[in-house]
Amino acid sequence: MMTKNYRVGIIGFGMIGKVHAFGYASLPFFSQPLSSTFEITHVATNHRETAEAAAKICRASHAVTDFRAVTENPDIDIVHICTPNDAHLAPLVSAIQNGKHIYCDKPLTVSRDEAQTVAALLDQIPDRDQYGGISQMTFHLRFLPAIQRAKQILTAGQLGKIYQFRFHYLHASNADPNAPFKWKHDTHGGVIRDLASHILDLGDFLLGSPQSILADAQLAVEKRPKTRQKTLSTASETEFLPVQSEDAVTILARMESGAQGIFEATKLATGNEDELRVEIHGEQGALRFSLMNPHFLEYFDARVSDQPLGGQAGWTHIACGSRFEPPATTFPSPKSPAGWLRAHVACLQNFLHAVDCNQPTVPDLRRGIKIDGWLDLVRQSAQKREWINLSSEIHSEE
Amino acid sequence: MMTKNYRVGIIGFGMIGKVHAFGYASLPFFSQPLSSTFEITHVATNHRETAEAAAKICRASHAVTDFRAVTENPDIDIVHICTPNDAHLAPLVSAIQNGKHIYCDKPLTVSRDEAQTVAALLDQIPDRDQYGGISQMTFHLRFLPAIQRAKQILTAGQLGKIYQFRFHYLHASNADPNAPFKWKHDTHGGVIRDLASHILDLGDFLLGSPQSILADAQLAVEKRPKTRQKTLSTASETEFLPVQSEDAVTILARMESGAQGIFEATKLATGNEDELRVEIHGEQGALRFSLMNPHFLEYFDARVSDQPLGGQAGWTHIACGSRFEPPATTFPSPKSPAGWLRAHVACLQNFLHAVDCNQPTVPDLRRGIKIDGWLDLVRQSAQKREWINLSSEIHSEE
Amino acid sequence: MMTKNYRVGIIGFGMIGKVHAFGYASLPFFSQPLSSTFEITHVATNHRETAEAAAKICRASHAVTDFRAVTENPDIDIVHICTPNDAHLAPLVSAIQNGKHIYCDKPLTVSRDEAQTVAALLDQIPDRDQYGGISQMTFHLRFLPAIQRAKQILTAGQLGKIYQFRFHYLHASNADPNAPFKWKHDTHGGVIRDLASHILDLGDFLLGSPQSILADAQLAVEKRPKTRQKTLSTASETEFLPVQSEDAVTILARMESGAQGIFEATKLATGNEDELRVEIHGEQGALRFSLMNPHFLEYFDARVSDQPLGGQAGWTHIACGSRFEPPATTFPSPKSPAGWLRAHVACLQNFLHAVDCNQPTVPDLRRGIKIDGWLDLVRQSAQKREWINLSSEIHSEE
Amino acid sequence: MMTKNYRVGIIGFGMIGKVHAFGYASLPFFSQPLSSTFEITHVATNHRETAEAAAKICRASHAVTDFRAVTENPDIDIVHICTPNDAHLAPLVSAIQNGKHIYCDKPLTVSRDEAQTVAALLDQIPDRDQYGGISQMTFHLRFLPAIQRAKQILTAGQLGKIYQFRFHYLHASNADPNAPFKWKHDTHGGVIRDLASHILDLGDFLLGSPQSILADAQLAVEKRPKTRQKTLSTASETEFLPVQSEDAVTILARMESGAQGIFEATKLATGNEDELRVEIHGEQGALRFSLMNPHFLEYFDARVSDQPLGGQAGWTHIACGSRFEPPATTFPSPKSPAGWLRAHVACLQNFLHAVDCNQPTVPDLRRGIKIDGWLDLVRQSAQKREWINLSSEIHSEE
Repeated sequence: MMTKNYRVGIIGFGMIGKVHAFGYASLPFFSQPLSSTFEITHVATNHRETAEAAAKICRASHAVTDFRAVTENPDIDIVHICTPNDAHLAPLVSAIQNGKHIYCDKPLTVSRDEAQTVAALLDQIPDRDQYGGISQMTFHLRFLPAIQRAKQILTAGQLGKIYQFRFHYLHASNADPNAPFKWKHDTHGGVIRDLASHILDLGDFLLGSPQSILADAQLAVEKRPKTRQKTLSTASETEFLPVQSEDAVTILARMESGAQGIFEATKLATGNEDELRVEIHGEQGALRFSLMNPHFLEYFDARVSDQPLGGQAGWTHIACGSRFEPPATTFPSPKSPAGWLRAHVACLQNFLHAVDCNQPTVPDLRRGIKIDGWLDLVRQSAQKREWINLSSEIHSEE
Repeated sequence: MMTKNYRVGIIGFGMIGKVHAFGYASLPFFSQPLSSTFEITHVATNHRETAEAAAKICRASHAVTDFRAVTENPDIDIVHICTPNDAHLAPLVSAIQNGKHIYCDKPLTVSRDEAQTVAALLDQIPDRDQYGGISQMTFHLRFLPAIQRAKQILTAGQLGKIYQFRFHYLHASNADPNAPFKWKHDTHGGVIRDLASHILDLGDFLLGSPQSILADAQLAVEKRPKTRQKTLSTASETEFLPVQSEDAVTILARMESGAQGIFEATKLATGNEDELRVEIHGEQGALRFSLMNPHFLEYFDARVSDQPLGGQAGWTHIACGSRFEPPATTFPSPKSPAGWLRAHVACLQNFLHAVDCNQPTVPDLRRGIKIDGWLDLVRQSAQKREWINLSSEIHSEE
Repeated sequence: MMTKNYRVGIIGFGMIGKVHAFGYASLPFFSQPLSSTFEITHVATNHRETAEAAAKICRASHAVTDFRAVTENPDIDIVHICTPNDAHLAPLVSAIQNGKHIYCDKPLTVSRDEAQTVAALLDQIPDRDQYGGISQMTFHLRFLPAIQRAKQILTAGQLGKIYQFRFHYLHASNADPNAPFKWKHDTHGGVIRDLASHILDLGDFLLGSPQSILADAQLAVEKRPKTRQKTLSTASETEFLPVQSEDAVTILARMESGAQGIFEATKLATGNEDELRVEIHGEQGALRFSLMNPHFLEYFDARVSDQPLGGQAGWTHIACGSRFEPPATTFPSPKSPAGWLRAHVACLQNFLHAVDCNQPTVPDLRRGIKIDGWLDLVRQSAQKREWINLSSEIHSEE
Repeated sequence: MMTKNYRVGIIGFGMIGKVHAFGYASLPFFSQPLSSTFEITHVATNHRETAEAAAKICRASHAVTDFRAVTENPDIDIVHICTPNDAHLAPLVSAIQNGKHIYCDKPLTVSRDEAQTVAALLDQIPDRDQYGGISQMTFHLRFLPAIQRAKQILTAGQLGKIYQFRFHYLHASNADPNAPFKWKHDTHGGVIRDLASHILDLGDFLLGSPQSILADAQLAVEKRPKTRQKTLSTASETEFLPVQSEDAVTILARMESGAQGIFEATKLATGNEDELRVEIHGEQGALRFSLMNPHFLEYFDARVSDQPLGGQAGWTHIACGSRFEPPATTFPSPKSPAGWLRAHVACLQNFLHAVDCNQPTVPDLRRGIKIDGWLDLVRQSAQKREWINLSSEIHSEE
């Protein structure tokens, strides 16, 4: 293994860019030493001011306002795509063309068409990991210890044949009709791209691909004030913008494995914080998880006798805590709850470890392309109000 | 109010008949004194032996094997229909024709056609409460204190405009493929009639009628042994019967109110006991309930400030306990958990109080007819794999 | 086994007398047929009016106002003691002297002196079960399926050496200083007798006897209005009564087994309903239970590996539900939550089954005598603010 | 406010030193910009090798093996004390004498005598914040958003007169008798110093000072193998070391306010991870918290009506999440769970903000001295098995 100092550029520094950068700052604490080192040198945002503030947080030496100063920069090895969804494609294409390692936040792009552009580009590059650089999607929820443990239990066949599942991602952020318009209310910012991308990826990770889907979408708040309302008296003068994207979507799915279930993503779930729920029922067991209680994976073993008086049959709340596998550490302690942010660090660790070892990684850009295709079909099913067969739709192109 | 001794006959004495009878035995403890008295005098089952055992439990003086000995008996005032689903119609028709008060377990019948037979009969009788007797469906889950409290909160408009809902009824009884065939695996015993009837009624009670639905059903275990398997060695000689009804159904619904949501009924939910879950999200608040923790109704008031540091915003676990309204008592104590069985008693109390006061009651047989119609459309949607507009389908007939 | 119709008299018909009577009414539903039958024939209370109302609820033929009409009545076989704590002794003595079977609510009496009177009486009777009649204390919490299951797990040694325990019984009934004075605020009604009796019995049942204890009691509300306050304006004219008994007690205990722990009983636990909590930690496992979630017993097996990522180590929520052993039935269903009231029925079933089979039962009056002795020492320790060695104090007398 | 670059030295780099250092790495993400900057320049441990590894993680330029290279170094502004408990005193004294700002992990020292040495030193320095430098104890649990919110609710008087409380800190780390000996089993490493220090500080923070205490300690595993056992066969040859400190302690406390309650710290609580529980009951409300579910503070308002059917009375699970007050940010989101590690960062933020603004901070070293005094009395009470009056014991010296 060759020691190298990898130079990193982050494009976009809203909340998610900051989360990616946090990964580098905290990496020495959460990881055993890698043979390589990693250093954020560039941050790109649209405005000089925000770029400089971001660079200060990242300890980066360069604050730039053109993403090409990152993607085309020969000094940069790794590019992070952290722009809004509809501004992924251009830096992504440029980064691929310049042979960078890429760490791209979800969703890869905003449409199957855009995703196919990326796919075509990758196809032209005969290299390992498809294009010369090592790439990973930021599907960080896969990296929660409880989800990793769920994957192990499923892979070991402990649940037997899978009957049913429920994946819900419940947010409340669109429930208030007075919450002002932002880019997530625009065409490419709806819950299908923003949240359903996560649960479809998790479904794929844990249960495999859907065979057919039926989606129903909901737009509950049709227009939103341009800025936050101050008083009722000024409400009449308020400028409103029409909301362009769905607040919620529910997807019925029949999987290739024969399992049937629900994927639901919503921002109308009043009362919820960051409530990702996963439930899987099989012939021999079941699993349950909630992101609001991420320390535990609940596991039910149907083979355990319920005699006498219940026997030892029941849901076991497996304490996953901060029990990550090396090269991750269990800092600060195996028993310490590890949540959303720690999962992001683990996701980045997975990528940097792959870069360090020069090996392909999962979930790579191809996964992003696949999910992007599914998301388009979800929207299509919701519009037509019909079942769509995914295999025929997607496989024909791959 | 006239004092009368009402004489009661119970038709069918499986688990549910016994539950109905338990209501009478425990009524004096859970109810303030009514002006009338109620006495089980007859129990009818198919076999003399079971009828006599049942009569002993009920302290009934007559054990009969022909339901007409109850429905046509001039000494009987009140008839309980507790037979398997597909054996409701005949005693029901007879009881109506003989002017009895009727307490009928859900579902009313096994098809919209059967239900229309009942409807037609009721239409011929111009009397109060539609046919001269007072009638009630045993939709007992409405009578859980937490559900009653939910209804009050909804009626008061505390949730504002309703956005979304989820009603899940999760059982595990069909998850084991070696569980032997019983009538609930036969044509009219599937989860649509058995469990979805409950949640569609609850949905109707709390949120009003669906406008359109899309259902997906699942039959996971296609054949079942005629009797419980003893050893693996004899498996090859086992006689198997083909399962005739679905193990699970999921229904997407758009309500007349504009709310959207899910009704799911399943017996494949490995690991669950009697997990009815209700979640409702509105513009100004939300509600959550689980039958496995029936003491509490969870209520979120979105109008409460979350400042500072969360303020007082959050889910309040309202302790409903045994807080029933008079003439119910809070025996043994308001703080005592009241579950499935107590809800059955409350349901019966509602009926007997109506009989005692000679007034119509809710949910009456007309509700059963409406639900029966919906259940047929659920099956139809699952077969066609298409959205069905309920208003056009149902209203045309009413 | 001889078939007999046992005639039952209930003395005292406050909430607890009604609970005992409920046991008889619901017994046919919760129990397989016994060879004998049981019939409440007499109810005794202080006033004719309440006695008659009680008799109506019980379907008893006789309403009496002198307990001797029950205890000295040759037609009565079984006597229930349901009077306030300080009115147990007289009917108890009479019932013993008249050779009745006795079912006595906890605590047996209000002092070690009174309990010794009972003990002396029993010692004079050389008969089986100490005095010719079969006796049982109403320590009903032992009979919750989850507690029965806990006992099995402990007896099987699955927890290894017991290190620690916590038994809390948390009520809020005395938290409101405006709650009016009642007999439970009088000398013999405090939480030591009322609630600590339960948890010391449970401790004894599950873990054996304490060796030494140190108690701290609390009287937070020193006087209470004679009747419930209506308005603030009349507060000045309100008559107040001094509270004579403790609102709360906490007991540190070192057990004969070497385990150490806490018994806490309180009515100042604002926010709680009927919160009995049990936690036991051993070298090889642990148990947890809460009466507010009585369906489940939580069990932790420390011998299960927590590798990889938590392995299968964790708290298993064993679904005990209504899983009672015969002759109890699992009515209405094994999966149906069984709470406080059902535990009372199970406690009565245990007694009646013993009567039916003419065999001694547990927990008998001797248990009540032992607990009464401990309760006196708890009060003594709280007064002296000193550790008390139970073995020397109690064993010397037995 | 003067801009300055503060230079930081960390003494000790076990788990806790690493946690302190993590605070600096993640500070730019969790804090609005401060006027000053902070840079870890020195790390001191006992061995060159560990010091260098630590320095690499911290990006510190100097790895040293003598703490005086930090405390006596004129280039160093801020000193972190992260050594084992019994190695706090020497660097602490040196840091005070050299006028450093000090951030000291709990407990301050290992005895009241040592603490008095520190107190005497502080008394000699007439300066603000007692000695010229700004000091803070690492009682990080105070800084959990839910605990901060609890403090606000208590300060606002929302609970009325406090009746009772329970503070439990439940670990399982000593439950396995085969877990090898480490310094926490030595004289100064027991749960009284390690865990009871936390809950006594929390009690002081939330409820004020105890007036009298009674403690009972437990040593369950009297000797431990010098190294982890590999096989049973070698067990006979294993070298065992006698454990010098308690595994568990329970403290009954009567507070100056009149409240009564329990402080329990244990490492014998099989099945628990990092289970800090806080419960407080007052005349008008109650609070509940568990570190295993740190997102929420549970609050019960006893003034809310429970009519009808429970009204809106109940425990509200206030979502505290990452809702910190400025200069802390809510990164990554207010709704993101913030646990043990984030609380450590917040604790450091509080200190650095005070340094930045040159103002005294809470909890300062005087708090550490007070807690150290109490911990000695806890041990003393456990040894004598007697109540100890804290006011007389402690106040006489202050």
